[in-house]
Amino acid sequence: MPWTIGAMYYQGMKLATFLLIAAALCAQTKPRARELGARFSGDPGPFNAITDVAGVTVGHETIIRDGTAIVRTGVTAIWPRGKENRDPAFGGWFSLNGNGEMTGTAWVEESGLVDGPVMITNTHSVGVVRDAYIRWLVAGGSRPGTNQRGTAFFALPIVAETYDGYLNDTNGFHVEPEHVYKALESARGGVVPEGNVGGGTGMRCYGFKGGIGTASRRAGAYTVGALVQCNCGARQQLMIGGVPVGAEIPVTTPVARGEEWTREDVGSIIIVIATDAPLLPHQLKRLARRATMGLARTGATSGNGSGDLFIAFSTANAGAGKETGLSTLTMMANDDLNPVFSATVESVEEAIVNAMVAAEDMTGFRGKAEAISHGRLREIFRKYGRN
Amino acid sequence: MPWTIGAMYYQGMKLATFLLIAAALCAQTKPRARELGARFSGDPGPFNAITDVAGVTVGHETIIRDGTAIVRTGVTAIWPRGKENRDPAFGGWFSLNGNGEMTGTAWVEESGLVDGPVMITNTHSVGVVRDAYIRWLVAGGSRPGTNQRGTAFFALPIVAETYDGYLNDTNGFHVEPEHVYKALESARGGVVPEGNVGGGTGMRCYGFKGGIGTASRRAGAYTVGALVQCNCGARQQLMIGGVPVGAEIPVTTPVARGEEWTREDVGSIIIVIATDAPLLPHQLKRLARRATMGLARTGATSGNGSGDLFIAFSTANAGAGKETGLSTLTMMANDDLNPVFSATVESVEEAIVNAMVAAEDMTGFRGKAEAISHGRLREIFRKYGRN
Amino acid sequence: MPWTIGAMYYQGMKLATFLLIAAALCAQTKPRARELGARFSGDPGPFNAITDVAGVTVGHETIIRDGTAIVRTGVTAIWPRGKENRDPAFGGWFSLNGNGEMTGTAWVEESGLVDGPVMITNTHSVGVVRDAYIRWLVAGGSRPGTNQRGTAFFALPIVAETYDGYLNDTNGFHVEPEHVYKALESARGGVVPEGNVGGGTGMRCYGFKGGIGTASRRAGAYTVGALVQCNCGARQQLMIGGVPVGAEIPVTTPVARGEEWTREDVGSIIIVIATDAPLLPHQLKRLARRATMGLARTGATSGNGSGDLFIAFSTANAGAGKETGLSTLTMMANDDLNPVFSATVESVEEAIVNAMVAAEDMTGFRGKAEAISHGRLREIFRKYGRN
Amino acid sequence: MPWTIGAMYYQGMKLATFLLIAAALCAQTKPRARELGARFSGDPGPFNAITDVAGVTVGHETIIRDGTAIVRTGVTAIWPRGKENRDPAFGGWFSLNGNGEMTGTAWVEESGLVDGPVMITNTHSVGVVRDAYIRWLVAGGSRPGTNQRGTAFFALPIVAETYDGYLNDTNGFHVEPEHVYKALESARGGVVPEGNVGGGTGMRCYGFKGGIGTASRRAGAYTVGALVQCNCGARQQLMIGGVPVGAEIPVTTPVARGEEWTREDVGSIIIVIATDAPLLPHQLKRLARRATMGLARTGATSGNGSGDLFIAFSTANAGAGKETGLSTLTMMANDDLNPVFSATVESVEEAIVNAMVAAEDMTGFRGKAEAISHGRLREIFRKYGRN
Repeated sequence: MPWTIGAMYYQGMKLATFLLIAAALCAQTKPRARELGARFSGDPGPFNAITDVAGVTVGHETIIRDGTAIVRTGVTAIWPRGKENRDPAFGGWFSLNGNGEMTGTAWVEESGLVDGPVMITNTHSVGVVRDAYIRWLVAGGSRPGTNQRGTAFFALPIVAETYDGYLNDTNGFHVEPEHVYKALESARGGVVPEGNVGGGTGMRCYGFKGGIGTASRRAGAYTVGALVQCNCGARQQLMIGGVPVGAEIPVTTPVARGEEWTREDVGSIIIVIATDAPLLPHQLKRLARRATMGLARTGATSGNGSGDLFIAFSTANAGAGKETGLSTLTMMANDDLNPVFSATVESVEEAIVNAMVAAEDMTGFRGKAEAISHGRLREIFRKYGRN
Repeated sequence: MPWTIGAMYYQGMKLATFLLIAAALCAQTKPRARELGARFSGDPGPFNAITDVAGVTVGHETIIRDGTAIVRTGVTAIWPRGKENRDPAFGGWFSLNGNGEMTGTAWVEESGLVDGPVMITNTHSVGVVRDAYIRWLVAGGSRPGTNQRGTAFFALPIVAETYDGYLNDTNGFHVEPEHVYKALESARGGVVPEGNVGGGTGMRCYGFKGGIGTASRRAGAYTVGALVQCNCGARQQLMIGGVPVGAEIPVTTPVARGEEWTREDVGSIIIVIATDAPLLPHQLKRLARRATMGLARTGATSGNGSGDLFIAFSTANAGAGKETGLSTLTMMANDDLNPVFSATVESVEEAIVNAMVAAEDMTGFRGKAEAISHGRLREIFRKYGRN
Repeated sequence: MPWTIGAMYYQGMKLATFLLIAAALCAQTKPRARELGARFSGDPGPFNAITDVAGVTVGHETIIRDGTAIVRTGVTAIWPRGKENRDPAFGGWFSLNGNGEMTGTAWVEESGLVDGPVMITNTHSVGVVRDAYIRWLVAGGSRPGTNQRGTAFFALPIVAETYDGYLNDTNGFHVEPEHVYKALESARGGVVPEGNVGGGTGMRCYGFKGGIGTASRRAGAYTVGALVQCNCGARQQLMIGGVPVGAEIPVTTPVARGEEWTREDVGSIIIVIATDAPLLPHQLKRLARRATMGLARTGATSGNGSGDLFIAFSTANAGAGKETGLSTLTMMANDDLNPVFSATVESVEEAIVNAMVAAEDMTGFRGKAEAISHGRLREIFRKYGRN
Repeated sequence: MPWTIGAMYYQGMKLATFLLIAAALCAQTKPRARELGARFSGDPGPFNAITDVAGVTVGHETIIRDGTAIVRTGVTAIWPRGKENRDPAFGGWFSLNGNGEMTGTAWVEESGLVDGPVMITNTHSVGVVRDAYIRWLVAGGSRPGTNQRGTAFFALPIVAETYDGYLNDTNGFHVEPEHVYKALESARGGVVPEGNVGGGTGMRCYGFKGGIGTASRRAGAYTVGALVQCNCGARQQLMIGGVPVGAEIPVTTPVARGEEWTREDVGSIIIVIATDAPLLPHQLKRLARRATMGLARTGATSGNGSGDLFIAFSTANAGAGKETGLSTLTMMANDDLNPVFSATVESVEEAIVNAMVAAEDMTGFRGKAEAISHGRLREIFRKYGRN
């Protein structure tokens, strides 16, 4: 890590910025996937996080309670331009396997705009999160960018989910509006907490504990970042940087009757892609579609039970979502997009592995999910000549 | 009306059935569009309603309150096979203009299944309706057809909306889970209440009071029915059966400052198509797409502010959504679909007009919406040689 | 017509331009639909043609031969920026009913670009037209805008079709590369020949002789134009400006055995929308989708046999398809689009009627198609109080 | 190989069938990827080819000529049910990156049918192949299954392409109708020639010689097969079974001026998926979409210049494309699809590698493409512990 930080300084960063980033990174005590020996291609940004795209902020509200109910869930909010900025961002989405929910996508597709944050929670709390965001707008006297007319306004929030019913009492409906407000308001840039946090609190991934993960890549003058809520994959499928980790750590513990489904590829993954590259909506759909390829690199084949929904936005072209009049925009030529495409695939791949590496063992509603062992990972990477 | 009822009898109906339908229809005291002289093509079913498709039931919960808040809203639920039947139906959907919400569509598109009811409410209550349906499933110990595995289940409810902020205090969030339960449980076949009911309570259409409307058509041995929640169109656009009604009844009342938007084509329309024709999911998308053509016959051009989202399902092929194993299905040949396509277009067209004809004057949150005058309609149809 | 021409002059046109247009229009001896009494909404451009969008040119090559083969076919080419200009235009497309071919659409969807002309011919000649356009590029040393790299280039031409096998010996494959070259090279602005010309030569529409039609609308500072190759619809469906013309002119002539299909809604319609409004690709898809609504106004319900494929492009944002680097673009706000949407619907509606009005009786391969009678149209419009 | 053949016998095959297959396989003298040590998951069928799906046949016409023109191209035809069988098959398609052509897809999407063969050629010969197939139908008095009515019929052939302008004089238009007829008529089951054959003759893949490749997987009682025409990828991206082969064999030869594009990820890949699993059209789209994941496993990120178009069909449900009447169909439950999804991903991955392994050095129009060295591959797999 020190070496990485030092290397960054020589990339032309201002000293003050460098020191701030270095301090933030040194405060991270947990290793991330590449520090365990995982090999990824491409060149990450300073935080190797979606927040490397300037302006993007992330807030997590984690809900862990024991007692009459066993609660392991939460809400994550990703603001394209920060919570104070109501300017919509160009966006596009893609459904690799639609056994899931992402509200607001009809308007993303139609308008080419991501208007407000992308929020992620558990499957059965999508509604409360959706309406709570509108309540928050109403309470703050603040309004979305795309649908205000005279005295009227309406919002079409973007809320996605994965299913946490193994670790969380999901049918107890424990997410409340206040949790949503906290996720929205606590959002900030810099280091993004990963693993058992926010919407990812109770998630599982490739038979290990999963959750939130993030990564980023530079693509020429631009940056691409990915954040995933990872709850997909079966153990034997897991590949990391070409190494068949899943085959090396087979599932050996017996599974309880009625819980056999936890061994299959039944989960879901939500992927959020951010970039500062000046891309139009139809170009951002191309990024969203390519999240598939980053996921594929980790071994998944997108099972029928998987809600694999991906959304991409660009922080460039501020003001493009204004109500009326002409906008002046900037667009990258299609033939220049290859580095942006590769950066997308690479940051998705690493974000998924980061989610598992950051996650910790969790015992919950119906059983336990073990985190992937850092020691075993180091051994396996060594066995395959990767470190 | 008596003539219509008599005519039905000669189509081979059992006497007992005939008498029940006749009694139900005679209990309707309000005329419908075709009784005022509107000319439509095609041959409607007994109720000229979506419930002419056997098994389909409709429930409305209408919320009208005055006091500290002016509430004019509600919830409508359309069950493809009735509330007791958890068997999913084949389905498909289409977004003509996606400035609106219809949750659950990623799974409709992926699985080709409509699993559970289609629910419609106001824009800012989609979330509460969505989660309330899951609560209702959990409370009843009952589960959706598509996503149960061992101890786990999850649901991806289908909830759509239009915006009622002119007549309803929509930012007061007055829809509660209990309203949803009532809409779900009160659903029944037969005559479908139209106009200011359920999700359509506070809606406006072509500058008149709008809301819920329905109609049906026979297509050979099969029936197609449409139900709309109509909140779209600008006055001057309105055409009924080829007659330029909007031009004949121009808006003359002044509009308050800040309410100018109420004169434009800013609203939305949700269209639900039901059929008993044995159609596969990709064929049902063809029906959903053609709802556009029924809407177009009434003059709309689908403004930017319009959430024009359409969904179609078939009650044939019971059991096709089962969890595992092979299903035996029946499918109509593509070349036989033309009568089904025409029936779709025609029933959508008439359902929209029925919504306006059934609606009554309403004063609400920010002003008043006048219903279209039956007397003026009769006059105009006469002027254009239609009755 | 003189009155229309005079009226144009007062819209601020330069005198020289006015005189040129007036001369061109006076040279048209055939009346168009609105001159027979058809009522349409909206305000057309000078030529009431797709060429009212500055820069758009149209070329027709009509192939009519008798002898060993009865040939009634041809090729139409619509150049977004004229044949000398290889700069791609932003574009989008929509399939209302995909029983037809429009090549090149995967790249239109992906790149958001219409690169080269839109060409229309008969169903069985799509291939020869496609490859002939590439030959023409190669022969001229000229290249498409989007796919050149070093010594290499490739093109993905846009070629659509409708089926003319009733009037034309379509299985004789009578379109040759030379016909394509002529259509490409003869393209010009101004008055667009309609009816039995170009790709529309052997087409039928609502049981009348059909073919090529065009119309345009002003939308604020912008213009929208439509060109159709109309080969769809069954007689009884035909509506013109709200008047049930098809019901007034029922088919009475007997049909030969094996030709019963000519009475059904089996045909197709290709619709090309042009505008100078600065719209992005995702906005142009919205225009293409709305072509459906213009078609619906003429009564069609898009039968299973119909290839109803629509494409829209914008002549604004020159240079946006350049190979590399950043482009500076202009975009209309979504909330300003309603007039452009209405203009699209209206110009499609009128273009379809213009195609039938301009067409003339034709006897061909298997029988005869009668043109719609101008006299009967005048009578019917009078009967319905439209003139 | 002998071991593989022996193993097959114990899977319950009839002795006669076994001997035929064994003879065919022994006639193959070239090793395939797995025989060089590449590790793939899943269980292939007897031929490890798309023809393991019963009824599927493949025909190649390879055109290699020197002289005034340097010709390295061809045509490949894949018949879902063999050339004698005009019964359409259920199908679906997906565009990962639409910088390419696949004609006929509007009708595949609309009807859910693949009607006729899937043909693949070079970019500039799509038209001639398309029309030649119709000529072949006309000449044979035979007709497509979906569009015949009385005396009329029309066809919407499916023709895809990749660009071979580096090795082939593609602007010389050397594919003639006769080549198409030969590909159609020579189609057969069993061993599928791979590498420099048919449409793949002049193709390049990951900077090596590419072309046609195929593979198959068993998925329970069913089989999935893939055939690719591989012309995509940049050298450094290439991964085989998790081994970074591209990084191990960097490009060292200099590239001529104007040919720099040959080093980038500019190519394309067409992927055809066949299965005998009884899947409906919307389920086959899910397979087509997952071809992306097989491609991703080999390292590609789908560059802007890539036409990555995938199509899937099922040979089950014979007769479903009939003109009129009801069909009785069989459908797999969605929750049973995971093995079919994995089989799709795995067979696509292996088919791509097989294409490169089978290809041989080729010198052509502008230069030379070297085949991947089998010796180097064995070494690299050994280095990474894979054999």
